[in-house]
Amino acid sequence: MNYEILSKISEPTDIKKLNNNELSKLCGEIRECIIDTVSKNGGHLASNLGAVELTVALHKAFNSPNDSIIFDVGHQCYTHKLLTGRFEKFSSLRTENGISGFMKPSESEHDPVITGHSSTSISAAFGIYNAKKLSGSVGTAVAVIGDGALTGGMSYEALNNAGSKKGNFIVVLNDNKMSISNNVGALARSLTKMRNKPKYHHFKFALSKFLLKIPVIGSPVNTFIYKFKEVVKGFVYKNNFFTSLGFNYLGPVDGHNIEALESLFNIAKNYQRPTLVHVITTKGKGYIHAENSPKNYHGVSPFEIEEGALSDQKVTFSTVAGDTLCELAKNNAKICAVTAAMTGGTGLSKFAESYKERFFDVGIAEEHAVTFCAGLSKGGMKPYFAVYSSFLQRAYDQLIHDCAIGNLPICLLIDRAGIVGEDGETHQGLFDVSFLTSIPNIEIYSPSSFKELEYIIVATENSDKLTAIRYPRGSETLTDSSYDFKSEFTVLKGDGKGAVVTYGRLFANAIDAQKTANFDIVKLNKIYPFSDTLIDTLKTYKTINVFEEVVKNGGIGEHILALLQENGYKGKFKIHAIDNKFVPASSVESALAKNGLDTESMRSI
Amino acid sequence: MNYEILSKISEPTDIKKLNNNELSKLCGEIRECIIDTVSKNGGHLASNLGAVELTVALHKAFNSPNDSIIFDVGHQCYTHKLLTGRFEKFSSLRTENGISGFMKPSESEHDPVITGHSSTSISAAFGIYNAKKLSGSVGTAVAVIGDGALTGGMSYEALNNAGSKKGNFIVVLNDNKMSISNNVGALARSLTKMRNKPKYHHFKFALSKFLLKIPVIGSPVNTFIYKFKEVVKGFVYKNNFFTSLGFNYLGPVDGHNIEALESLFNIAKNYQRPTLVHVITTKGKGYIHAENSPKNYHGVSPFEIEEGALSDQKVTFSTVAGDTLCELAKNNAKICAVTAAMTGGTGLSKFAESYKERFFDVGIAEEHAVTFCAGLSKGGMKPYFAVYSSFLQRAYDQLIHDCAIGNLPICLLIDRAGIVGEDGETHQGLFDVSFLTSIPNIEIYSPSSFKELEYIIVATENSDKLTAIRYPRGSETLTDSSYDFKSEFTVLKGDGKGAVVTYGRLFANAIDAQKTANFDIVKLNKIYPFSDTLIDTLKTYKTINVFEEVVKNGGIGEHILALLQENGYKGKFKIHAIDNKFVPASSVESALAKNGLDTESMRSI
Repeated sequence: MNYEILSKISEPTDIKKLNNNELSKLCGEIRECIIDTVSKNGGHLASNLGAVELTVALHKAFNSPNDSIIFDVGHQCYTHKLLTGRFEKFSSLRTENGISGFMKPSESEHDPVITGHSSTSISAAFGIYNAKKLSGSVGTAVAVIGDGALTGGMSYEALNNAGSKKGNFIVVLNDNKMSISNNVGALARSLTKMRNKPKYHHFKFALSKFLLKIPVIGSPVNTFIYKFKEVVKGFVYKNNFFTSLGFNYLGPVDGHNIEALESLFNIAKNYQRPTLVHVITTKGKGYIHAENSPKNYHGVSPFEIEEGALSDQKVTFSTVAGDTLCELAKNNAKICAVTAAMTGGTGLSKFAESYKERFFDVGIAEEHAVTFCAGLSKGGMKPYFAVYSSFLQRAYDQLIHDCAIGNLPICLLIDRAGIVGEDGETHQGLFDVSFLTSIPNIEIYSPSSFKELEYIIVATENSDKLTAIRYPRGSETLTDSSYDFKSEFTVLKGDGKGAVVTYGRLFANAIDAQKTANFDIVKLNKIYPFSDTLIDTLKTYKTINVFEEVVKNGGIGEHILALLQENGYKGKFKIHAIDNKFVPASSVESALAKNGLDTESMRSI
Repeated sequence: MNYEILSKISEPTDIKKLNNNELSKLCGEIRECIIDTVSKNGGHLASNLGAVELTVALHKAFNSPNDSIIFDVGHQCYTHKLLTGRFEKFSSLRTENGISGFMKPSESEHDPVITGHSSTSISAAFGIYNAKKLSGSVGTAVAVIGDGALTGGMSYEALNNAGSKKGNFIVVLNDNKMSISNNVGALARSLTKMRNKPKYHHFKFALSKFLLKIPVIGSPVNTFIYKFKEVVKGFVYKNNFFTSLGFNYLGPVDGHNIEALESLFNIAKNYQRPTLVHVITTKGKGYIHAENSPKNYHGVSPFEIEEGALSDQKVTFSTVAGDTLCELAKNNAKICAVTAAMTGGTGLSKFAESYKERFFDVGIAEEHAVTFCAGLSKGGMKPYFAVYSSFLQRAYDQLIHDCAIGNLPICLLIDRAGIVGEDGETHQGLFDVSFLTSIPNIEIYSPSSFKELEYIIVATENSDKLTAIRYPRGSETLTDSSYDFKSEFTVLKGDGKGAVVTYGRLFANAIDAQKTANFDIVKLNKIYPFSDTLIDTLKTYKTINVFEEVVKNGGIGEHILALLQENGYKGKFKIHAIDNKFVPASSVESALAKNGLDTESMRSI
C-alpha cells in the first residue's frame, strides 16, 4: 500500500502544516494502515478506527510531548502511535520486541505513562498537570477517556479531585456509545440524553460559522475567546454529571470533524478551570464490517479484510466456564453470573441471554462487582464473578474486606490466569496466586483441562468457601484428560527420585517432559490450601522442582516449602516461576521458554 | 446513669410504639450513652452523635432485619447497635470479645455485612436487594452513606449500576458536610449548593404540614402517596449528580427531625425506581465540644466528658513521618505529600499548612491517589503517599500497573502497618508485606524506631525506586535506638547458634527476649529485596526463627526460606506470623501474645 502522507509524518508537528484536503487523505491512510496491520497481527480495531480524526485534531491543537496526552486503556492509541514516529515500526504491532498495543513510555516520549487497565488516564494526567504547574514546566496534560472507562470508579475519583481545583486541566470524553460492547450503567443513559439534544447540531453550526475563525495562539485570544464565552455558554448544558463534579462542559461535538474538534480544543485550552470536551465518535468508523458490528470488532484476531473477522467459535476455557455455569443455572435458581464489562471475553454471552435476571454486567467496576457479589451471597444467592486475572487485582481489598472476613461463599472464575501473550506487561495474569493465597479462608483451583474446569465448577457449586478457579487464556494444551482431577492432587509416576510439582497449563509441559526426563509429576488440582497428604507425599522426594506460571513471591512453591520445612524436609527444593520482573508482549510459548517454564526447561532440571 | 427508655429497647420494633416525646427522650439517652461509652473506651464520636435521629427514623420507617440497613464504614452505627439489642453489652465497645466499633454480622442479624472500609455500602446493599428480588424474599435494602464516603470510586460504581435498574432500591446520604475532617472534592461543593437552596426550608414546611399525616402502612397509602407525588416533585431538584446517575432525588431534609425523616423514607419506599434521600446532619450534634470541633472528635481516645477530648500531642510514627517530610520539603521543592482523606491520621497536618501547593488531599480515593502520584512522579516531582496499610489494599493494581511497571520513584509511607488493636479485623495492617513483595521493582523498609524512620525517609529522598516504608500505629516501643539502622540489616550477637530474624515493632520484643534467651538477632532494616550478605549470614545458623507481624503467606520468612534453600541451607527454619486467619479487636499486646509474637513467645522458641 501507498501511504503518501502518513509516511512523511515523523512527529506531530508535521500534521500542523497539512491543509484540510491532506488531513482528510491522512485519515484515510491511517485507517488503511490500522485495518491492514490489525488484520495481520490482531489487536483493537473498532475503537481505534473511531478515534482517527479525534487524535489528529488533538495533535493539531496540542503540542505533544510538551502537552502530555494520555489515552485511557490504550484501545484508541494506534493513530497516536502512527503520528508520533512509529509508522515505520507499526507492522510489528503486538509482537515480541515490537510496538505495544498500549501506551508505553519506553517506546516514545509521546507516551507519558503506561496504560492497559481502564480508567487511569484522568488520575495520571492530573498528576502530570500538577507537576507541570509546580515546576513551572510548559504545557498541559490531557486525558482522553472513553464512555466505557467512565464506568470505572477511579475516573470518578479523579474527576471529583480535579474538578475542585482551578487551572485549565482538560479531559476529552471519546463517547462512542460503547464500552467494549454496549456500555452499561445510568451514566451511559445520561450521555445518550446529552448526545440527542438538538443543540448538538446547532452548536456545530455555530462553531463552524464563528469560532473556527478565531486565531488560536497568543494573548489576544483570551479577550477574543472570552467575548465568545457567552455565545458558547448557550450551547453548554448547565447541569450534568460533569458540571456537578466541577467541570466546565463543552460539547457534544462531532468526533469526525477535525476542524470542529480543533476549535473546541483551542477554546478548552483558554479556560482557567477544568474542562471536559464531549466528543461523539462512531466505533469502527470507515470499515463497514466494524461499523455494523462494533462489539465484534473491539479486539480481534488476524482476519481477511474483505470478508471481515469471523466470530470466534473456538472452544476455550472461557466458553467452557460459561457453558458449565449455564448448565448449573438450569437446575439451581441461586446461580448468578457477574461480569465487569467482559461478557464475551469471559464466555458469559450464553448465560446473559438465557438467564437475564441472574446476569449482571456492572460496568468496568471490579471493586463494586466483588462487593456486589458479597451482597448477593449474603442475600442467599450463589454468585460467580468471571473476571480476568489482571483486572481482579483491582478488587484485592474487597476480596479481603467484603468476602473473606465474612467467609462468604462466592466463586471467582479467574480467566486469563498466567501468561496472556501479545497484550504484554499490563495484562499478564501472574499475580493472582500470590495475592489470593494471602487471604484467609480461600480455596484455589487451577484446572489444566476443560474437563477439569467443568468438574471443579460443578463440584464447588455448594461449597461454603470463597473459591477461586483460575485458568489460562485460550484452549487447552493437554491432549489427554484421563488423569485424576477429582482428588486434591494426583501423582504421575516416573522414577520416583525427583518430583515436579505443577498445576494449570504447565501440567501439559510436565507430561511432555516426563517422557524423556522420567521424574514423578505431582499435579495439584486444589492448589491451595494443602492437604496433610500432599506434604507427606512430597516429603518422600529428595528433589522437588516446582513449576508455576505466576510470580515466585507468594506463589505455591514458597508456601509448600514453608510447610515442608516445618515438617523437617531436608531435600533439594527449587521454585521455577516469574522472579521479580514483568513479562513483556510475546507469544505464550516464547514467554514460557524465556522464563524457564517450557517443556525443554523441565526436561533439563 | 439512668437509661429509662433506651434500656427497654431490645429490638427495633420497640421504638415504633414510642410517641414523639418519648422518641426525643430516647435520642437524648442514646447520646448520653454514646458519649459516656466513647469517653471510656475511645471510638468514633462526632459521626455517631450526628446520626442519632437519622437512625431512629430509619428503624421506624424500615423493618430490620427484613429490610437490610447498611451503614457505610460503620462510623455512624452506634445508635443502630443500641437499638438492635446491644445496649446491655455496649459498655464493651471496642474491647476484646466486646461489641465491635463497626457492623459485624456475627454480632447481630441486624448487621447484614461487615463494614470498616469506606464506600462499600451501596454495592453490598444493591447485591442484597437483587438477591431479595430474585428469591422473592420480603423487604428491601438501604445503604446509609456519608458525604465523605461518596468520594470513594466504589460508591460511584455502585450508584451508576443501581441507577440503571428499576425497583425501589434506597440510598440515604448522611451529609454532615464532613468526611473524617473537612470533605474535599468537587461533589462536596455541589452538595453545598444543594443544601443551601431556599427550597430546603420550604420543603420542610410542606412536609410537616401535609405529609406527616399520611398513614404509612398498607395499600391505601400508595394512592395517597402518589397524589402527593406532584407536590413532592416540586421540591426535587431535576438535574444533579444523583439524577444523572439515574436516581430519583429527595431532599434535602433536616436530619435531626425524626418525623420529617420518617415521612421522606416512607415516600422513598413507594417509588418504583432507585431513590436517594439527602439528609443534612450536624456532626457532633448534642455534645458541645464535638459540635464546635467535629474533626477533632471524629475518632477519639478515652477522655473526660466535661473537659472534652484533648488533642493528641503524642509523638507517633505518623507525626515523625510527617515532620521528617516537612524537613525534606524545606530544601527540596520536588517533595509532594498525598493523602486519601487522612491528613491528621497520617501526621500530615503540618505539611498541609506549610506546603499548601504541594499537599494533596484527594478524598477517600486510594486508587486515584496512587495513579495521581505516578503522574506527579512522571512530571518530575517526588510524591509521598501517606496511607494506612489496610487502605492501601485498595490500590494494589495501581501500584503494579501505574507505578511498578514504569519503575516510578514514588514513596509509600505506610502507616498502621501490623496489628492496630481495637479497630479489629478490617483495619489490621497485616497484608502489605505480602502484596507489596509480589510486585517487581519495589524496595521495602520497616523501621523499628523513630530515628530509623526518620533516617530512612531522608535516605530514600533521591531513590529511583518505588519505595515502601511501613511502620506501626502509635509510639515506638524500643527504648534504645543506638542499633545500626543504616545498613541493610544488623546482627545483635547472642550465643550465635540460633538466629531470630525480625523487623519493625517486633525488634523491641526480640531485644527483651534476648536478655534471657540468648539467641542472635538478625534485624532487617531494608526488609526486601535481600542482599547476598544477608543470605550468607543466615546460612551460618543451624536454627532460624523468623518473627513477623504480617500474614505468613507471602511474608518475608517465606521469601528468605526460598533463597536459603536455593543456597543449600539445611538447618531448621520456622516462621512465626499470622497464619491464615483474621485478627479480631483487642489490645495490640494481647493480639501479639495470642499469635505467638510477644516477648514471651520469642523467649520460649
